[in-house]
Amino acid sequence: MEQGARVVVVGAGFGGLTFCQTFREPGARITLVDRRNHHLFQPLLYQVATGGLSAPDIAQPIRSILANDPNLNVLLDEVTGFDLAARQVQTAKTTLSYDYLVLAFGGVTSYFGHPEWEQFAPGLKTLEDALRIRNQVLLAFEHAEAEPSAERHRKLMTMVVVGGGPTGVELAGAFSELARHVLLHDFRNIDPREARVVLIEAGPRILSHLPEDLSESAERQLRNLGVEVLTSTKVKSIGEQLVELETGERIEAATIVWAAGVSAHPLTRKLGNGVELDRAGRVKVNPDLSLQGHPEVFAIGDMALVIGEDGKPVPGVSPAAMQMAKHAAKIISGELQGTPGGRTPFRYHDKGTMATIGRSAAVAILGNQHLSGFIAWLAWLAVHLLFLIGFRNKLSVLLQWAYSYLTYKRGARIVFGERAGG
Amino acid sequence: MEQGARVVVVGAGFGGLTFCQTFREPGARITLVDRRNHHLFQPLLYQVATGGLSAPDIAQPIRSILANDPNLNVLLDEVTGFDLAARQVQTAKTTLSYDYLVLAFGGVTSYFGHPEWEQFAPGLKTLEDALRIRNQVLLAFEHAEAEPSAERHRKLMTMVVVGGGPTGVELAGAFSELARHVLLHDFRNIDPREARVVLIEAGPRILSHLPEDLSESAERQLRNLGVEVLTSTKVKSIGEQLVELETGERIEAATIVWAAGVSAHPLTRKLGNGVELDRAGRVKVNPDLSLQGHPEVFAIGDMALVIGEDGKPVPGVSPAAMQMAKHAAKIISGELQGTPGGRTPFRYHDKGTMATIGRSAAVAILGNQHLSGFIAWLAWLAVHLLFLIGFRNKLSVLLQWAYSYLTYKRGARIVFGERAGG
Repeated sequence: MEQGARVVVVGAGFGGLTFCQTFREPGARITLVDRRNHHLFQPLLYQVATGGLSAPDIAQPIRSILANDPNLNVLLDEVTGFDLAARQVQTAKTTLSYDYLVLAFGGVTSYFGHPEWEQFAPGLKTLEDALRIRNQVLLAFEHAEAEPSAERHRKLMTMVVVGGGPTGVELAGAFSELARHVLLHDFRNIDPREARVVLIEAGPRILSHLPEDLSESAERQLRNLGVEVLTSTKVKSIGEQLVELETGERIEAATIVWAAGVSAHPLTRKLGNGVELDRAGRVKVNPDLSLQGHPEVFAIGDMALVIGEDGKPVPGVSPAAMQMAKHAAKIISGELQGTPGGRTPFRYHDKGTMATIGRSAAVAILGNQHLSGFIAWLAWLAVHLLFLIGFRNKLSVLLQWAYSYLTYKRGARIVFGERAGG
Repeated sequence: MEQGARVVVVGAGFGGLTFCQTFREPGARITLVDRRNHHLFQPLLYQVATGGLSAPDIAQPIRSILANDPNLNVLLDEVTGFDLAARQVQTAKTTLSYDYLVLAFGGVTSYFGHPEWEQFAPGLKTLEDALRIRNQVLLAFEHAEAEPSAERHRKLMTMVVVGGGPTGVELAGAFSELARHVLLHDFRNIDPREARVVLIEAGPRILSHLPEDLSESAERQLRNLGVEVLTSTKVKSIGEQLVELETGERIEAATIVWAAGVSAHPLTRKLGNGVELDRAGRVKVNPDLSLQGHPEVFAIGDMALVIGEDGKPVPGVSPAAMQMAKHAAKIISGELQGTPGGRTPFRYHDKGTMATIGRSAAVAILGNQHLSGFIAWLAWLAVHLLFLIGFRNKLSVLLQWAYSYLTYKRGARIVFGERAGG
């Protein structure tokens, strides 16, 4: 076995973390670099944005998760560049040399060439995003309560979500439940049930990655929750508290969230000219997930463009990132132990897809089964609780959910980090 | 009964909230103004600062607490001034007229004429303060881990707490436990047990509001946790990561917290020339808690200077604020119902005092009993759990504590709201 091989992993999302948990070579030294001190359970970020969970409920210190592996170093640091020829990663604090490099730094919200929209319509990728949205929507209701002009109420109580993918659907459903159930008895001058939630999707149907019958079911379930669903509707521009559609319609809304696009983290552009990227900035990888010309460098998760056996890109979901991590770990382990199994191609095993819409409302495809409503929601709940295993907060999160489910209350409706004035 | 009397309450701390919960006159309209949307359970703020609890664990939406009273309006707004002659409160959004006014806006951290120290040594009064301190101390350990020079480790791993009152003692104990137990296995290059926690008190003993034997016990318990306690030690100046003592000694520390002083919120200065304030900005009140010349205006809690029967000021603790709230509510109720019981003087009933130091470590005085160590800690725990009744998170907080107690883990060690760079 090669002694003291140095493995550097960039990013502690689902991909990077799973790699570190899977790859256990006694002789190898692993350094995991992330600019955050925590791993984020992103599938529940919308719950933080809508006051259902607190930030630490869905975040876990990286050191704490990986405390048991003495060969593993965690470095809280910002990666600034790469020198693939010299096999080095530059960070704000130091330079790391590697024998193997695993790139897993994920994606960022993409505004399709309109970065100026970000200030008016935050995305939902980080805890800061979630708390910004939570503050925005809660303060909008506060301002409406204090606002004598009924005309202004409408704008303050309108929430627009752009993008009908899973995040957009979850957010729209949760916004509507927040207004219609959670805040119902809190105000005296406004009726939160008059709140308007609009979900805008450019394509002909929401949740386009699912079969048509499930898209239809999801749309029906959203409408039952009081959400206006606009499909085949393109956004022309976004301004302050204003969404303008290509039809010319203008929607005034105090809360606008952008859930329409994700691209690879811009760090992929620092990998050098020899590394080919697609339009979304994702790294095109070999079938074994390594970079062309760099068998010692792997790219996994949302930042990698991996073509599946069906000729389509593997979707940017956490199970795919975790499977890629295990694939890369197996290849590197084999080569370090001197028993390489060859560079087998990565195969994505789609174990099912699901999207939640609200309390007792979801759609899911498991094997050949298409599920809707309560049964799909139970499946979603079960899978997410399984995911949370290993998270300290598992029990606490479960209790919060049980409480919210029974009482329609959301305990984390706390505005902080900015002043409530004006 | 006077119909439609207007009662305005400023501040939703322990005083203001208790007033609203106690004062239930069917014909009166109450408006509660606060610039935050949440009531904060301040006695546990140090737990948020040291990663033991999350912000929403100790904060509850004001609207949610008071949702059942249809005569009560909650206004999220910033009070900007008062016109006591016209019986009006000015806010950023509106002007409120009142028949009775209850002032309960509490205190702020005071730097004794050195406001420039605030940037180097935050106080601990708000959720933002707590998260700032949490980020600061966790990032200091991260920087130490990445710092090759052992010389710089010492500064990064030193925490200084200025002020030996209850908050300072709790913080110092929690810092020491954080380093010595919680973070123990998380690092590879540093040994968190080498962290230094220094508690600086200007007076001859810590917890000077308690009998001498309990001060001594508290100091002993702190030393057992590894805290250096410096009494009769005055701070000369505070700079960036530097505390200079009057003895000339300089202590370099990445984390400095100021817990040495509290004064009334500066809003007391806007009450007008006719209202007398003490040096800490507190309003001098009549024995019935009303303002001189303004029987319709009451001041309660930390912002009021109330002289007890022993000739000493009533301490600025939450039980006192709550008792004052009930006293004011009773007087106003009586007058509105036309059955005034006269303006009886307020009497503070001291039901006991306690301070927690760490796991199984505390001091308490209950009646004539002086308690120390585990038994005092149990008493502290019981009282705080009782306090938390009415808080949604009671069960969740209890579970967090049980978990932390059994495992020495702290689940909320999450850095967010700022970048980890540099």
